[in-house]
Amino acid sequence: MKRSNRLVILTDYFMENPRKHIQLPFFVELCDTTKSSISEDLDIIDNVFKSQGLGYLERTTGAGGGVKYIPEVSAEKSLDFVESLRQKLEDPSRILPGGYLYMSDILGNPKLVREIGRVFASRFSKLNIDTVVTVATKGIPLAYAVASFLNVPVVIVRRDPKVTEGSSVSINYVSGSSRKIQTMVLPKRSLQDGSNVCIIDDFMKAGGTINGMISLLAEFNADVKAIGVLAEADDEEEERIVTDYTSLVKISNVDLSHKNIEVQTGNFALT
Amino acid sequence: MKRSNRLVILTDYFMENPRKHIQLPFFVELCDTTKSSISEDLDIIDNVFKSQGLGYLERTTGAGGGVKYIPEVSAEKSLDFVESLRQKLEDPSRILPGGYLYMSDILGNPKLVREIGRVFASRFSKLNIDTVVTVATKGIPLAYAVASFLNVPVVIVRRDPKVTEGSSVSINYVSGSSRKIQTMVLPKRSLQDGSNVCIIDDFMKAGGTINGMISLLAEFNADVKAIGVLAEADDEEEERIVTDYTSLVKISNVDLSHKNIEVQTGNFALT
Repeated sequence: MKRSNRLVILTDYFMENPRKHIQLPFFVELCDTTKSSISEDLDIIDNVFKSQGLGYLERTTGAGGGVKYIPEVSAEKSLDFVESLRQKLEDPSRILPGGYLYMSDILGNPKLVREIGRVFASRFSKLNIDTVVTVATKGIPLAYAVASFLNVPVVIVRRDPKVTEGSSVSINYVSGSSRKIQTMVLPKRSLQDGSNVCIIDDFMKAGGTINGMISLLAEFNADVKAIGVLAEADDEEEERIVTDYTSLVKISNVDLSHKNIEVQTGNFALT
Repeated sequence: MKRSNRLVILTDYFMENPRKHIQLPFFVELCDTTKSSISEDLDIIDNVFKSQGLGYLERTTGAGGGVKYIPEVSAEKSLDFVESLRQKLEDPSRILPGGYLYMSDILGNPKLVREIGRVFASRFSKLNIDTVVTVATKGIPLAYAVASFLNVPVVIVRRDPKVTEGSSVSINYVSGSSRKIQTMVLPKRSLQDGSNVCIIDDFMKAGGTINGMISLLAEFNADVKAIGVLAEADDEEEERIVTDYTSLVKISNVDLSHKNIEVQTGNFALT
């Protein structure tokens, strides 16, 4: 197979299989070529990925050696994307009662969701995360986007105990915004004991929901390596109970009567 | 820029932007090259995509002409994938009370979810779908996977009316399995009037939930072009009320006492 054809096949393969360890003989057979040709192809792809800010190829030598595509978008590209998000959100027609923001158009756009996922996955790239955890419903697409770049499964915590999932662990927690006692549940077989997890959600005020997830995950002896939220907002009535998190944007001064809203870059830019 | 580098960049671009119409001058500038070189690059990529069963490049000439990547997996590849899913599901340890099946591991695997999305998107490729609709919660990842290949937004119908989404349309429907009257709601601003939609869900028994979605979508004058479900199962107590759908697998003879389950290929293979 010619180099030009191989480059298309290999690029496609890496894009579809981020963080998958691939031994070179696999590509040699796939492309019906030699190991040294594949090696040169990988050099080309690695260089282009790096120069385009798409990540890099991690290569290991020796027995069982091979190559792995690490999709890490550059800090500069990430910040450009976050800025475009910030501008989209700073639209007074998004203000909803209760100081919430209409974000369903953004969360309903697979392309934007994927980019958000890429930004978080790049930031959390070195943390050896082996599961992404979110809570139903709005955080789900973001969690999948992050997980697809990290090549790990997603586990969804539910607010309504389902009888159709087998035995479960549940906890009660106090929601920051409503101050009501709510329940969260996770089926026992859905998460391995002692996992390194990353929590992803769309929105955080005081952090009651995320704090509930942390308590629930403790029952699975999970190590919460990172918390990523698309948007954080101040809760005037309550102090934040989750402090170690990464937010892309920060919503403040939502003024329903004057139809005014301020959206800043989240702490993502600071760290 | 050299051809080898251009091929990596263009392949990446197409994979990230399926069904996006791109005018050639964009690529000419991106790769700092000539129109005829880009044209040759596109020939190479088109040939590889076709030979690998990844889809094809749709090219249009004249003013405003350009290129669009249509990700259509071949029928053969689709059937191979569906067969692998079928085998995964035919595992007695998946049987849950009520004739349900534990599928969270499959629905929690971003790679498998993406493949399911690719299969549906390929099947519905010619239907001019402009929105994918699903109902919370388990169908959400599948809906995003389909939508990412069709390059359209996702709209999520909810069972619990949220106050944080603005004014909504809601309907009551009878759930096939529980025979209870339930409510479904969709915020008014989430779906444009007269959209061509495709409904995606993970599981269908009698079809009460999907029938409810059809009624709700009628309020938005939507044209339901296709319905795709990962798994269908017979409901012994009730006749199916949704008949025009595409299923990947069909679950039958779930026998809890003998720990036996039969999973067949769905009607996907027949049409």
